[in-house]
Amino acid sequence: MNKEIQKKLVKNWFKILQEMICKEIESLEKGKRKFISTKWSKNKNKNEGGGEYRIIKNGKIFEKVGVNFSEVYGKFSKKFRHKIPGAKTNPNFWASGISIVMHMQNPHIPAMHFNTRYIYTSHGWFGGGIDITPCFKDKKLSKWFHSEIKKSCDRHNKKYYSRYKKWCNKYFYLPHRKEPRGIGGIFFDYKKDNWEKDFNFVRDVGITFKKIFRDIIIKKKKIKWTKKDKETQYKKRGRYIEFNLLYDRGTKFGLQTGGNVEAILMSLPPIAKWN
Amino acid sequence: MNKEIQKKLVKNWFKILQEMICKEIESLEKGKRKFISTKWSKNKNKNEGGGEYRIIKNGKIFEKVGVNFSEVYGKFSKKFRHKIPGAKTNPNFWASGISIVMHMQNPHIPAMHFNTRYIYTSHGWFGGGIDITPCFKDKKLSKWFHSEIKKSCDRHNKKYYSRYKKWCNKYFYLPHRKEPRGIGGIFFDYKKDNWEKDFNFVRDVGITFKKIFRDIIIKKKKIKWTKKDKETQYKKRGRYIEFNLLYDRGTKFGLQTGGNVEAILMSLPPIAKWN
Repeated sequence: MNKEIQKKLVKNWFKILQEMICKEIESLEKGKRKFISTKWSKNKNKNEGGGEYRIIKNGKIFEKVGVNFSEVYGKFSKKFRHKIPGAKTNPNFWASGISIVMHMQNPHIPAMHFNTRYIYTSHGWFGGGIDITPCFKDKKLSKWFHSEIKKSCDRHNKKYYSRYKKWCNKYFYLPHRKEPRGIGGIFFDYKKDNWEKDFNFVRDVGITFKKIFRDIIIKKKKIKWTKKDKETQYKKRGRYIEFNLLYDRGTKFGLQTGGNVEAILMSLPPIAKWN
Repeated sequence: MNKEIQKKLVKNWFKILQEMICKEIESLEKGKRKFISTKWSKNKNKNEGGGEYRIIKNGKIFEKVGVNFSEVYGKFSKKFRHKIPGAKTNPNFWASGISIVMHMQNPHIPAMHFNTRYIYTSHGWFGGGIDITPCFKDKKLSKWFHSEIKKSCDRHNKKYYSRYKKWCNKYFYLPHRKEPRGIGGIFFDYKKDNWEKDFNFVRDVGITFKKIFRDIIIKKKKIKWTKKDKETQYKKRGRYIEFNLLYDRGTKFGLQTGGNVEAILMSLPPIAKWN
């Protein structure tokens, strides 16, 4: 298939998914809270694409959710070329993605993160993942969550789950604290085995995330929490911020390549605390 | 002077200053709040020095202050050698320093930061600085603050103030936000002109900080603040965190060389917020 058609299909899917997930979240809020949408351009003087981020705040269930869609293109600066596959000889790139971070009112509902993306330099690849960050140990939830992810991966390739789970654990880790950010999930990158199959998998990861966050919320939303539980959540969010600002590649990449600051940092929680 | 004696003198001064500043803070809290001190060792199995950090929280004036003293030594890893002056040929290092960050209850009192350090590889140098981060524009305070710093610098060398002020503005800057962290002050590094004079200057910077923070607090502590002012402060602290985790060299250096996490991250405010 023509690569321009591939890009268009991928981009359109990310847009549709953004819309679907925002609708789902608003319906969980019973329509009483709505997303606020902001469109942005990467470069004021030149057409280098842009995106649309949507934020909902102060809901009954969701304390803050950012749902970010972007489609950007241009040339990598010299500084970046050697870091990006296929960019050494040809610095032109095209990238589109959707990323979502959810911070919850109820400390018994984990913070949840999802992202899928397609990048094209001299060749194209997919990346993405799902991972969740509970504040409290919850073996039952953890088992259920991983089994849902596994089911979804197994539909595509029996090797995906264990491979991408390992990658996720390795990636979402705070070396200075010697602790994981959350309880993992899946993480994959540089995926370019078979475009049709890869895109199919990427779509399924999005659908799976939509199902998983809804199911977790339905399971957990009635649990009462104390002020002390909320404090625990604020501290856990402090760690989340440490990870995102100290280590997250996407955050660094975005900030260093002139991405939209609000869209990149929408992942940060509304309130966090430190000892 | 023998370099071992130099190290001892510097280290002892930093310890004395830690004690003096903690006493000053406790006296501003009228003795109703006390610092909690924690001693730490860099390496459990080997003598590589360590330090003592002191934290006071929930005072009438101070919401959280960390006062960190350290004296560490060892060998730079291969990864670090090329980044440190004088470490390429001889990876052994010795470093001692004091660093202080103050987060205030009253949003009309700026957050304040001070640090001085002495590092010895195949040669020794001093570094340090003072800078403050108000939440609101306050021309009068800013003018007074910079003139106090200037007076102190001018006692040593008429060129210091303008040189170190520029360095400070350049250093404490958030490129992704295109905004400074605060209103600056002074910042200096690799200072190895004349050991006696440099040490004299470094001591004076410490004394100046002690006088400045006290004077600012006395000037400002009676100003009433609203809930909205406090919210502004929480947001400003969000930027402070972004700077410290994304850009601060000391934070990165400390975390990557196995420094004490609590001592390094004591600079983070107790609560912060993001939009």
